[in-house]
Amino acid sequence: MRDALVAAAFRLFLERGYEQTTVDDIVALAGVGRRSFFRYFPSKEDVVFPDHERCLADMTDFLAASGDTDEPVRRVCDAARLVLRMYAENPSFSVQRYRLTKQVPGLRAYELSVVWRYERALAEYLRARFAGRADGSLRADVIASAVVAAHNNALRSWLRSDGQGDASATVDHALGYVQSAFGGPPVAPVPVPAGTAGGAAGAYDADDVVVVVSRRGAPLWRVVQEIETALARD
Amino acid sequence: MRDALVAAAFRLFLERGYEQTTVDDIVALAGVGRRSFFRYFPSKEDVVFPDHERCLADMTDFLAASGDTDEPVRRVCDAARLVLRMYAENPSFSVQRYRLTKQVPGLRAYELSVVWRYERALAEYLRARFAGRADGSLRADVIASAVVAAHNNALRSWLRSDGQGDASATVDHALGYVQSAFGGPPVAPVPVPAGTAGGAAGAYDADDVVVVVSRRGAPLWRVVQEIETALARD
Repeated sequence: MRDALVAAAFRLFLERGYEQTTVDDIVALAGVGRRSFFRYFPSKEDVVFPDHERCLADMTDFLAASGDTDEPVRRVCDAARLVLRMYAENPSFSVQRYRLTKQVPGLRAYELSVVWRYERALAEYLRARFAGRADGSLRADVIASAVVAAHNNALRSWLRSDGQGDASATVDHALGYVQSAFGGPPVAPVPVPAGTAGGAAGAYDADDVVVVVSRRGAPLWRVVQEIETALARD
Repeated sequence: MRDALVAAAFRLFLERGYEQTTVDDIVALAGVGRRSFFRYFPSKEDVVFPDHERCLADMTDFLAASGDTDEPVRRVCDAARLVLRMYAENPSFSVQRYRLTKQVPGLRAYELSVVWRYERALAEYLRARFAGRADGSLRADVIASAVVAAHNNALRSWLRSDGQGDASATVDHALGYVQSAFGGPPVAPVPVPAGTAGGAAGAYDADDVVVVVSRRGAPLWRVVQEIETALARD
């Protein structure tokens, strides 16, 4: 019944416009009563974003299941990927909603509040992981915000292309940029000398210079990581 | 009259609560008519944030006045400082509003939309500056978001301390963290080979490897910049 309500709502939103559609119209088309609607959705806005509560709960569970050995920046990037997965499960629905949200200021405001809740979930996890470290809360807030911005930049670009192309690859690339900036390695670093098959980058240090040899195709974050590792050995 | 309306509104919000205060109550206390209120403020929410429109306009002007030699990340950090200045102009008012906003969900939603507008202003400036560069829009969105998060982390910490202490120093420190993460060089880069007096980093490329020779003391952004330049030559 929940799915039927969402389907009826979107059919009407597209035909008549969001503002012109009432909850009564939606329940009439779905063939159920008003109380059934409000059992699933607190308001008309909520039927536009039917899966965010579940996704927020999944994200909170995922972060709560983290161990001390999980690299924190990587962990929040993986948590953000849960949101992408929700959008990618149903590309045509996601694209429709994207277009609708762009047109209706009230839905944009609703979306901002949802994005803010995801960001707070990531920031709270990072604050706990960075507790006692210098600037822990500052780093947590900045990194959470950067992760959300990168994810949303990639997600919007995929939605603008009508859900064509590989959403995961686009989001991975965007999150890789954040990881390179804040130093969380996406995989355990395996420095290998240049020329080795499959090698990305390797760093060797002498007295006061660091020499980095990098394959041309290596992603920048990988090279940066190698340099950071080499400098950290100091 | 504008200031009198704000003062009357805040007196009533603190005495009776925000939700329990009507626009009629505010104009009665200020001794003016309803039309005067709506001439200055489109809604009751707007009287809580009377200076954001002016500050947004100042920020837009400040960014529009930028030259090509302004380092973009530094420029958006300076733009964010305009918001802090607005809050610091009247600490007791800012602290009162902070407490009020924490209690009223509608005001928090309003604040989210204001923060989003600041973030878009910064991101649009950065998008223009990064146009044509790899990942220009991604970098713009992520950096704008990080700047806003750092600013707000510092601002909130100052507001929580009841406006005591040096707000500027706290915000400078927070923005410094973002500048260090995103490699905004404080001066124009002057790449020089390793070993040259004063040199930081140099990159040389062969067929399919890039060799970066870096002085150990070189800041990471400088090294990354050299690698990017070398890869861009491809």
